Amino acid sequence: MTSTAAADARALPHPAREEIRLEAVLHALSDPMRLRIVRELAAVSGDELSCSHFDLPITKSTTTHHFRVLRESGVIRQTYRGTAKMNSLRANDLNGLFPGLLGALLVSADRQAARLGEG
Amino acid sequence: MTSTAAADARALPHPAREEIRLEAVLHALSDPMRLRIVRELAAVSGDELSCSHFDLPITKSTTTHHFRVLRESGVIRQTYRGTAKMNSLRANDLNGLFPGLLGALLVSADRQAARLGEG
Repeated sequence: MTSTAAADARALPHPAREEIRLEAVLHALSDPMRLRIVRELAAVSGDELSCSHFDLPITKSTTTHHFRVLRESGVIRQTYRGTAKMNSLRANDLNGLFPGLLGALLVSADRQAARLGEG
Repeated sequence: MTSTAAADARALPHPAREEIRLEAVLHALSDPMRLRIVRELAAVSGDELSCSHFDLPITKSTTTHHFRVLRESGVIRQTYRGTAKMNSLRANDLNGLFPGLLGALLVSADRQAARLGEG
């Protein structure tokens, strides 16, 4: 009971699947850092990655902002596990709403990174 | 000569295909009005539509701003024809750079519009 209540108190707000909007998803992915986070999450399939896993060339508060934009748009799910905030891609929700979009976005991002020599 | 020079003087700046960036395209499409413009242009295939064709519930200056964002991101091409500014989707450029993305975006936008009863 206590641990459930504590977990609930720390639960972060997420849009339900039917609340996710295409425009918000596209806005979330229109930033290079957020696109990079999504590519890394996609690379581990359904696995979770902690925020500290990401080695981004930006401040901690900017990183937190980017994760919040991704969560509030419905692109990622964030869950506390102990002291770590874990992140996973909402691939099932996105694929259900927007068939083929996430795949096309990831392929496009990969191709652009290769083209620009960013690996 | 004279008419060519006049046309050049009025030519609007566009990114070359290789200058188009995925993040800028996604940002351009992250606005409901701009997404609507792109859907209308896609519906007429490669045809051009004048700015005045679009009956958007926004001011003329905001409309001009949206078309400029679409042009500068590489999503549309804008050309003067007499006094009209004509717009067309840069589908070939986008499909060459980002295979499958434009199609998936349009399908997603259609599905969302149907789901939200926006036709």
